[in-house]
Amino acid sequence: MLIGGIEAGGTKFVCAVGDESGNILDKITFPTEEPDKTLDAAKQFFNKHDIQALGVGSFGPVDLNKKSKTFGSILNTPKLKWKQFHLLDQLKQDYNVPITLDTDVNAAALGEYKYGAAKNVASVLYITVGTGIGAGFVKDGQTYIGKSHPEMGHIFIQQRKDDNFEGNCPYHGTCLEGLASGPAIEKRFGKKGDLLGADHIAWEITADYLAQAIINYLLILSPEKVIIGGGVMKQKQLYPLIRRKVLEFSNAYMELENLDEMIVTPKLNDEQGIKGAIALALLG
Amino acid sequence: MLIGGIEAGGTKFVCAVGDESGNILDKITFPTEEPDKTLDAAKQFFNKHDIQALGVGSFGPVDLNKKSKTFGSILNTPKLKWKQFHLLDQLKQDYNVPITLDTDVNAAALGEYKYGAAKNVASVLYITVGTGIGAGFVKDGQTYIGKSHPEMGHIFIQQRKDDNFEGNCPYHGTCLEGLASGPAIEKRFGKKGDLLGADHIAWEITADYLAQAIINYLLILSPEKVIIGGGVMKQKQLYPLIRRKVLEFSNAYMELENLDEMIVTPKLNDEQGIKGAIALALLG
Repeated sequence: MLIGGIEAGGTKFVCAVGDESGNILDKITFPTEEPDKTLDAAKQFFNKHDIQALGVGSFGPVDLNKKSKTFGSILNTPKLKWKQFHLLDQLKQDYNVPITLDTDVNAAALGEYKYGAAKNVASVLYITVGTGIGAGFVKDGQTYIGKSHPEMGHIFIQQRKDDNFEGNCPYHGTCLEGLASGPAIEKRFGKKGDLLGADHIAWEITADYLAQAIINYLLILSPEKVIIGGGVMKQKQLYPLIRRKVLEFSNAYMELENLDEMIVTPKLNDEQGIKGAIALALLG
Repeated sequence: MLIGGIEAGGTKFVCAVGDESGNILDKITFPTEEPDKTLDAAKQFFNKHDIQALGVGSFGPVDLNKKSKTFGSILNTPKLKWKQFHLLDQLKQDYNVPITLDTDVNAAALGEYKYGAAKNVASVLYITVGTGIGAGFVKDGQTYIGKSHPEMGHIFIQQRKDDNFEGNCPYHGTCLEGLASGPAIEKRFGKKGDLLGADHIAWEITADYLAQAIINYLLILSPEKVIIGGGVMKQKQLYPLIRRKVLEFSNAYMELENLDEMIVTPKLNDEQGIKGAIALALLG
């Protein structure tokens, strides 16, 4: 069976066709422009393939509340041409196959769960730390959606006493995203993270906030594995720092064995999103 | 069908028999003493009834990881005679019926979901604020358990700049429980909460921390409804304060309609735990 997948990101769209085993047979990437133009480009790609189902991992916020009148539409995004755009309706017009819509981070979590670093566990949290911070969660083969989809990047944590940064989240100031996203690091230290040295205090501070967030996620969701990806995590020194701080902050309250295997890097080399999108179509 | 339920609390045990509709037909309450004596008292009660199944909502932490060798035993509790006690094994010896074991807070959430304030929603978070802080979660009729059960009371939040209290959580100092539990309020202000006036600053501060915690739970779990119970919440002025602060802290990021119906008191008059325990046995 040939399955289509769309990783609908805020800056780029990835479209691919693949099979039930996670193999990708054809793939295309193009920039995210206005909805019509972008979805036309997707249609041109899929016209070449006889797909039986389509999975879509979308940027958000996207209305995933099945009881809602606007189910399947993009909500309050800064990308104005996409705001209130009814993505699922348009896709249904474009493709006469079953369509499964979810968030980009849930798709990435599902990709790693089925084919990557979380292949052998029952539940996984996939955190991405980049321009923003978000997380997707998969348990027992299903992506997690509540009333609508989580927005885990905006949780409150404790700001360090030696950190006076006012935060850069337009809604919450010093929430996790406001303190630890790529733009937050750049704003606090006056240059992009990758221009700071690997031993810069920025990483100690960032690891502190991400470790606190992971503690909160563990206490609330109790996942077996935590994968952290995204542009900021190209700073590989963050992983041991985060693990050390998770252990320190938990302070023996939680039973945390072998954090080297519990808090890990993604395994699918930036293909977790598109492989997960294809896998979404198989959830049924 | 006659169903047994045990609300196994840290200070008291409630045992009851009931039916599939949430009616309680007989009930007994006695203090929690050492395991043998306490479970014998339960056995004496249930000997009088021909139960077909048993549901147990237990204090914790309790090992709910089915893959674990100690599945069903009490873990690291300050109640030393219960530490490492294999509750589920003992219950299986005492009762020759199917037994469902879960946490006390998941049982309470399930009770309110089936018979109380959350009867008409798909997902509910039940928070209890008392000697400790904990929360149970039910979605689509199932209680939520991850690798093991959540311990949501210990999440990190932002401490207010006007609050210098060092916190009283032995593990985390100023986590939510360390800042907003009954004993935290008493330690900070030098007397029990119910001796402070309803307009004391204590409630403003406590509402602040509980509102932040609710924001975090909403962002991670996206429940349809949030019920807050427990001894501290006998201070009814907390409810409007918490709702106002949730709205303020969310700052229009989340779509929060009608908080009066979303963040509510329990409805089952302290019977959510035992009714939920009976309902656990019906989950199968």
